[in-house]
Amino acid sequence: MKESTAMKVSRSSAALGHEAVEDISEALRPLLADVFCLYMKTKNFHWHMRGNHFRDYHLLLDEHAEQIFAITDDIAERARKIGGTTLRSIGDISRSQRLKDNDDETVTPKKMLSELRDDNAHLTGFLREAHEICAKHNDVATTSLIEVWIDQAERRTWFLSEIVSDLQ
Amino acid sequence: MKESTAMKVSRSSAALGHEAVEDISEALRPLLADVFCLYMKTKNFHWHMRGNHFRDYHLLLDEHAEQIFAITDDIAERARKIGGTTLRSIGDISRSQRLKDNDDETVTPKKMLSELRDDNAHLTGFLREAHEICAKHNDVATTSLIEVWIDQAERRTWFLSEIVSDLQ
Amino acid sequence: MKESTAMKVSRSSAALGHEAVEDISEALRPLLADVFCLYMKTKNFHWHMRGNHFRDYHLLLDEHAEQIFAITDDIAERARKIGGTTLRSIGDISRSQRLKDNDDETVTPKKMLSELRDDNAHLTGFLREAHEICAKHNDVATTSLIEVWIDQAERRTWFLSEIVSDLQ
Amino acid sequence: MKESTAMKVSRSSAALGHEAVEDISEALRPLLADVFCLYMKTKNFHWHMRGNHFRDYHLLLDEHAEQIFAITDDIAERARKIGGTTLRSIGDISRSQRLKDNDDETVTPKKMLSELRDDNAHLTGFLREAHEICAKHNDVATTSLIEVWIDQAERRTWFLSEIVSDLQ
Amino acid sequence: MKESTAMKVSRSSAALGHEAVEDISEALRPLLADVFCLYMKTKNFHWHMRGNHFRDYHLLLDEHAEQIFAITDDIAERARKIGGTTLRSIGDISRSQRLKDNDDETVTPKKMLSELRDDNAHLTGFLREAHEICAKHNDVATTSLIEVWIDQAERRTWFLSEIVSDLQ
Amino acid sequence: MKESTAMKVSRSSAALGHEAVEDISEALRPLLADVFCLYMKTKNFHWHMRGNHFRDYHLLLDEHAEQIFAITDDIAERARKIGGTTLRSIGDISRSQRLKDNDDETVTPKKMLSELRDDNAHLTGFLREAHEICAKHNDVATTSLIEVWIDQAERRTWFLSEIVSDLQ
Amino acid sequence: MKESTAMKVSRSSAALGHEAVEDISEALRPLLADVFCLYMKTKNFHWHMRGNHFRDYHLLLDEHAEQIFAITDDIAERARKIGGTTLRSIGDISRSQRLKDNDDETVTPKKMLSELRDDNAHLTGFLREAHEICAKHNDVATTSLIEVWIDQAERRTWFLSEIVSDLQ
Amino acid sequence: MKESTAMKVSRSSAALGHEAVEDISEALRPLLADVFCLYMKTKNFHWHMRGNHFRDYHLLLDEHAEQIFAITDDIAERARKIGGTTLRSIGDISRSQRLKDNDDETVTPKKMLSELRDDNAHLTGFLREAHEICAKHNDVATTSLIEVWIDQAERRTWFLSEIVSDLQ
Amino acid sequence: MKESTAMKVSRSSAALGHEAVEDISEALRPLLADVFCLYMKTKNFHWHMRGNHFRDYHLLLDEHAEQIFAITDDIAERARKIGGTTLRSIGDISRSQRLKDNDDETVTPKKMLSELRDDNAHLTGFLREAHEICAKHNDVATTSLIEVWIDQAERRTWFLSEIVSDLQ
Amino acid sequence: MKESTAMKVSRSSAALGHEAVEDISEALRPLLADVFCLYMKTKNFHWHMRGNHFRDYHLLLDEHAEQIFAITDDIAERARKIGGTTLRSIGDISRSQRLKDNDDETVTPKKMLSELRDDNAHLTGFLREAHEICAKHNDVATTSLIEVWIDQAERRTWFLSEIVSDLQ
Amino acid sequence: MKESTAMKVSRSSAALGHEAVEDISEALRPLLADVFCLYMKTKNFHWHMRGNHFRDYHLLLDEHAEQIFAITDDIAERARKIGGTTLRSIGDISRSQRLKDNDDETVTPKKMLSELRDDNAHLTGFLREAHEICAKHNDVATTSLIEVWIDQAERRTWFLSEIVSDLQ
Amino acid sequence: MKESTAMKVSRSSAALGHEAVEDISEALRPLLADVFCLYMKTKNFHWHMRGNHFRDYHLLLDEHAEQIFAITDDIAERARKIGGTTLRSIGDISRSQRLKDNDDETVTPKKMLSELRDDNAHLTGFLREAHEICAKHNDVATTSLIEVWIDQAERRTWFLSEIVSDLQ
Repeated sequence: MKESTAMKVSRSSAALGHEAVEDISEALRPLLADVFCLYMKTKNFHWHMRGNHFRDYHLLLDEHAEQIFAITDDIAERARKIGGTTLRSIGDISRSQRLKDNDDETVTPKKMLSELRDDNAHLTGFLREAHEICAKHNDVATTSLIEVWIDQAERRTWFLSEIVSDLQ
Repeated sequence: MKESTAMKVSRSSAALGHEAVEDISEALRPLLADVFCLYMKTKNFHWHMRGNHFRDYHLLLDEHAEQIFAITDDIAERARKIGGTTLRSIGDISRSQRLKDNDDETVTPKKMLSELRDDNAHLTGFLREAHEICAKHNDVATTSLIEVWIDQAERRTWFLSEIVSDLQ
Repeated sequence: MKESTAMKVSRSSAALGHEAVEDISEALRPLLADVFCLYMKTKNFHWHMRGNHFRDYHLLLDEHAEQIFAITDDIAERARKIGGTTLRSIGDISRSQRLKDNDDETVTPKKMLSELRDDNAHLTGFLREAHEICAKHNDVATTSLIEVWIDQAERRTWFLSEIVSDLQ
Repeated sequence: MKESTAMKVSRSSAALGHEAVEDISEALRPLLADVFCLYMKTKNFHWHMRGNHFRDYHLLLDEHAEQIFAITDDIAERARKIGGTTLRSIGDISRSQRLKDNDDETVTPKKMLSELRDDNAHLTGFLREAHEICAKHNDVATTSLIEVWIDQAERRTWFLSEIVSDLQ
Repeated sequence: MKESTAMKVSRSSAALGHEAVEDISEALRPLLADVFCLYMKTKNFHWHMRGNHFRDYHLLLDEHAEQIFAITDDIAERARKIGGTTLRSIGDISRSQRLKDNDDETVTPKKMLSELRDDNAHLTGFLREAHEICAKHNDVATTSLIEVWIDQAERRTWFLSEIVSDLQ
Repeated sequence: MKESTAMKVSRSSAALGHEAVEDISEALRPLLADVFCLYMKTKNFHWHMRGNHFRDYHLLLDEHAEQIFAITDDIAERARKIGGTTLRSIGDISRSQRLKDNDDETVTPKKMLSELRDDNAHLTGFLREAHEICAKHNDVATTSLIEVWIDQAERRTWFLSEIVSDLQ
Repeated sequence: MKESTAMKVSRSSAALGHEAVEDISEALRPLLADVFCLYMKTKNFHWHMRGNHFRDYHLLLDEHAEQIFAITDDIAERARKIGGTTLRSIGDISRSQRLKDNDDETVTPKKMLSELRDDNAHLTGFLREAHEICAKHNDVATTSLIEVWIDQAERRTWFLSEIVSDLQ
Repeated sequence: MKESTAMKVSRSSAALGHEAVEDISEALRPLLADVFCLYMKTKNFHWHMRGNHFRDYHLLLDEHAEQIFAITDDIAERARKIGGTTLRSIGDISRSQRLKDNDDETVTPKKMLSELRDDNAHLTGFLREAHEICAKHNDVATTSLIEVWIDQAERRTWFLSEIVSDLQ
Repeated sequence: MKESTAMKVSRSSAALGHEAVEDISEALRPLLADVFCLYMKTKNFHWHMRGNHFRDYHLLLDEHAEQIFAITDDIAERARKIGGTTLRSIGDISRSQRLKDNDDETVTPKKMLSELRDDNAHLTGFLREAHEICAKHNDVATTSLIEVWIDQAERRTWFLSEIVSDLQ
Repeated sequence: MKESTAMKVSRSSAALGHEAVEDISEALRPLLADVFCLYMKTKNFHWHMRGNHFRDYHLLLDEHAEQIFAITDDIAERARKIGGTTLRSIGDISRSQRLKDNDDETVTPKKMLSELRDDNAHLTGFLREAHEICAKHNDVATTSLIEVWIDQAERRTWFLSEIVSDLQ
Repeated sequence: MKESTAMKVSRSSAALGHEAVEDISEALRPLLADVFCLYMKTKNFHWHMRGNHFRDYHLLLDEHAEQIFAITDDIAERARKIGGTTLRSIGDISRSQRLKDNDDETVTPKKMLSELRDDNAHLTGFLREAHEICAKHNDVATTSLIEVWIDQAERRTWFLSEIVSDLQ
Repeated sequence: MKESTAMKVSRSSAALGHEAVEDISEALRPLLADVFCLYMKTKNFHWHMRGNHFRDYHLLLDEHAEQIFAITDDIAERARKIGGTTLRSIGDISRSQRLKDNDDETVTPKKMLSELRDDNAHLTGFLREAHEICAKHNDVATTSLIEVWIDQAERRTWFLSEIVSDLQ
């Protein structure tokens, strides 16, 4: 009896519904774009850093960039696993990103670090939004991953905040 | 004061209540049986695969089997940690499993992969049911593990779905 | 449009509110003290164990101590990541801990293990309390970590319970 | 000339004859079932162990289970390499196993270990039978593997025998 | 005397001249953009692959993407080492890339692989152009790196060409 | 007493007799040539593979080639350990090999894999012959090694047979 | 004869005398407390560091803390090996420590580092005192360990001194 | 039916008979003594080597000693696994060894190497004798191990023979 | 504009021209044959070495053989990457090799090493010829690999020359 | 001048004097014998252990044996480094050992462990004696090593003492 | 025919000519001296660094020193491989080095880093000179190595330049 | 009260006194120079070795050089840790070294090895002198390190002595 009931759980019922897939994919798409954008900005500042803290900050941003990059594949595959699609090109990233590019030729170290601090704080906000959407649709696997990413983003924000705190 | 209050948290109150243990153990038992069943079926098809995709699918199913097998000890120990019991024998698995055996002598690769796709989808459903039960009893440690297993099951389903999509 | 809305998410809104930081820091502080206290007690018994199960229990307690110690940095850094502060000294631990020291010269192996069993059970209770507080403030990153620690504490309790069960 | 003679060795002659494949597959099938059965029983006792030797025996049985499990794939693939087939499901295991399940709720540690000692001794006997059958058909590759498994089974039996020897 | 002559080699003379830096940076900039573009397209197809070769091509493209991504930091740092600057943002990539995005919803596996084959062939051409420019300015360190990247690009092209050769 | 008897076991008696060395060396020589020949053919097909299974078969043949190559040193050293000699050059291989070269410009994947399947089956036959000769002279160390190589050759044959089974 | 003399070396004579055990245990107890105290203070400053050298000092103090922590088990086990006892709880540490806690809310980086420099220098002094006591009782195994710890403490002091030297 | 028959295979029947255990243990005992003896002699010559090949031979003998030593535990445990006993002390080795000690103060390198060559050849003979005894009693697990040791002993003999061949 | 120009770089123009592929493949074919030939001769001497430097030279030739063997796959794949073909069989090697086989039964160590010294020197010459041909056709990826192989061949020649220098 | 004085330090003066070499070698010889003797006894008990603590003690003694064995090469090489000689054979060990063999057929676990406890305590005594002799001759390199071995011997004694303390 | 022509390539023709060896050795000698000199200076500043960036710069210079040191053996062996000789002593380095020693007691961090920046820039110049000489003689193996060293030297110069840029 | 007394141990009293720092730094400076000198000479002979033992001695000297080099950083840092300074340049080494350079063009292997034997023996003497000075000032951390270096130097001397003993 229990078995026969169980067997009725069809593929579609086990998986998330159509609307859930739509909503979640829609939430993950700009999130992925923001993560790529933040990765590129972090590397930008990693490459163009200057001054007597050069090595220290150069390494810091490389660690951050590596941590940020590690998220990209997970977000994209998460969208695919639930049956949605994800970003397809540089142009796609560019059109979907909410964080802003910084193409300035000269940026002071202090400006670099404080801008990244703000971007990481914004990213935390976007992660929370995505978490809410996934939670609403009961997509517990995605929320589980996002929780780790929030922890990491908060850690990056902490580090950057403490450094910037008394940088003249 | 705070301390004295804290000290009142007895073993039983810190741990899950009797009913919770009952319900969760009851939910984990057939889940474990299904996982063992799916492991065996995946290995069966891994061993008896044929055709020009032999190596590719042979390896795919081995990866899946390894991932599925890795869950078994965690489910069983989880039941024990909260004070319940778990499966004891091959016969016990056989009586508790909800997924069905496939003892056919000859199964085409397409049939193999689509059947596993369906079984993995069903397993996702069973995992969601177990998640709900644990969440109801506030067993946050078990839900945390199940979230990872859902992610894995959805990934296996994705892979199998894409492959089967145009297999003639 | 979406972007402009998104950009309004300021640092403060993305981050946890002031009250949340207060409550969570307040919850993590005694938790960290308890973890340090339990670490020290576990090592104490690891060092002063005797009897024919000496090596077996000596190793068991070392594994437990190592697992417990690994949590300390995560708790402290978690408090810092959300903008709070954490413990500062041995005296600070001493004043915040809820679990009790055991300075007895002679403790039988059975007493050692059953006391640790109880302490781990209490710790599980404290972890659940902290989980509730964090969940209330939607601090999903902290809850995610606590879920793992509960699983570990329940495992330690299971091991110790089974051993003590028939120790004369 | 030597070459021309050699080239006459056709696929069928190099490989084992039809009867050999039949006999050997027939011998490996229940052997594989017994190994799965013993694996499950060993894990069962690993999970439900109790008492002051809990950790010691819990670890012992885990090592044994791991060693036993490692054999399963080799047996199944060996049957496939010579052109035979092998087990396909939990039900298949259940119908082919010769060792008996133990579904008792409560088993004393002594009973657990002595039952496993006997089962491992029986397994040694089944391995010797299979060795004889393979040797008769000159399947030297299979015999070579079985020799290692006999050595392992005898080692497990030795350990279990010594422990049980004075367990009250 | 030799020493005194040697000491005259000033920083500027040892380093590449202003014009060389300009030319080489100018050549590396779109190259880096193309590499990012190709990385993103390769991942796009890796994520959206379908059909009975799903796993095989999914893995192939992941290997290619990883190899392509590993070049990015080297190109950017090479520009910095000689005193030039490099790309700063997603938008910067988008404006500098010569390879084209492919944002189509549905792409057949054959189309995916043949497009990547062509893009890798184009990349080889761009690498040869950059090699010539660096060689002209005697920047032997950059040419040395490009030689390895050409070898890799030719290998990717070979693989993709052979696969596409008879894909219907 | 026992010792004095034991000491009479001279070097020559402990070692294999002159005739045994002759026979076994004579058997290992063409075996080594066949293994080198099969290695080269497997690499040939690995390098010149084409078609939509390119990567899958390319990798398969590389694994097979690596496994085959690993045998060569063992065969040669085995001949040396018992006091015999072994192959000395490419020409020596060429004159001793029994498996045939395939120098065709164009070979279809199906033809490649089926030819290797047959060659591996022949190799199994040659290995069995060598096993018999060594067994006759009681050279148990060589037979022990050959048993492993037979298992590997049978595995390669199995894989190739399953793939070729429905390749059009 | 030599043997018979040797055998007279009873357990007690080989081991350190009662008074030695007393003195050495008495010396190791506050030493262990100081090491725990210094560990906690170093972590405190590691967690609450701020300013533009945040990452650099954060890492430095983590390395120091790790090195300091690694000593604790060795000191405690050394006391046990010679037959003495050691610390049992947080309260025990608190009562035995000679270095002072620093529970200030706000400590400047310069103050943090210079206080740690002084504490490490004091620790060196305590280590030298313990060395003298062990040397007096000919406990060469303990002195051998202490020599390494002095080297490490002097290295930490060197690093901290050089940094503090011109910190404004 | 099959099962019921199988269950009759009692522990004693699965295991080797009493006589077999006696004979095999009896054969393994002096073998183990010889292996210890040869280990010690090889180390002796490793330590007291001289002359212009010092390093080369010093290393050679260390490799040989390590390989020889690795056998000791396997022989002893093999005796225990089948239910026999094994050597207990240095004196036990001394009384059981068949190879002879060499306590000479001065031994030329040539003498060292040729004596070891002869001892290794003798050991091969002893291994063959033990192999025959085990084979007679159908102890296939022991024979399987001995086959590897014969291969190793023959390799050591080969190396030593080639070196000694023209040593003046 | 720049882009449109760039897009004109067709596959054929990016790749090496037809004549280049012909010339380079033609140059790599005998080179690969020589490398296989030298590998086999080096192993031949490795296996048949004798005399008091046996171990030293045995190891030397094994290192050389391993280094030589590592080149083979790279040469063959390089030919394939640019669109050419490569060797197909033992017979193909035999017909293409320029270095000579040495099938003598007895070769003194001095003769072995001096012959290998000469062969490695010849190989260096062949490598330089191939380098010139590749450089002429601007195949910078192949030249880059050959430069490493020349360095290795010169190192082997150096070692062998120094050893042979005073071998009587 | 300093240099010229320094250069007068001849080999003999830098090295230990003749008498020192004599005394130290004389002290290390029986020490090495005792260590081998204790190694063998520890393995003896490791192999012949019985009872419900079988695995726990079996592992304990294996760890002890491994630690003891690791000392042997160091003692022997230390004697050689200062210009002395060392043990040469099993018989040599037998004649020099001061610790006693135990060849009893049946030894209870308690007797095994307490005898090893005493032997390790005696070994500590012998190590102290050797330390004194080396210290007298200012052989600081040997004393440095012995200090570590004393620490290890005391640790083994501690473990064995605690276990034996309440073993009935 | 091709073969016979090939065989005429004598050792001397394959190797670099006498003049090339002279010129290249002559170029590598002072280069090696400069590298040793720069290594020593980098370590000097690594050891004597001071100030609030102590750890950061201390680590930076250690990484640089390690990278510089890794070149020394390659340069020396390269000279030997082509048949030349190389440096023999500290005095030899001292007489050949072109970079200058800095024996000042007190050097500010800024002065340390800017001096190293200049020295690395000079080293780049010397490397380019050596590259030209080797290129002239067609010593492609040496040029290939130098290209990597130039890249590393430019990287070190970049790091040091950026740091020094605003150091007051 | 104990605490208050303890706190009086000021930095200066815990650290070594001014005179001790002077004496020890003065002793370590030429020691470091000798170690660098011996490193360079060992590499010199490693690079310029010849003859039939080429590879054997080439490797030996490389091992020795690596071991010697590993000491340099420790000596220098040791001087810094106690507050002294150390060597600054190649010229500084040259002026402080007591061992002599050997710039001869041609040195026979025997001369090379015997000269290194003597230099290592001298180094042992210098190490003992330094040990005495450190011991006098109670710098137990430095003596502890020197003891290891003496052991290593004696081992190198032993190896070189044995080889040279009969080199004609």
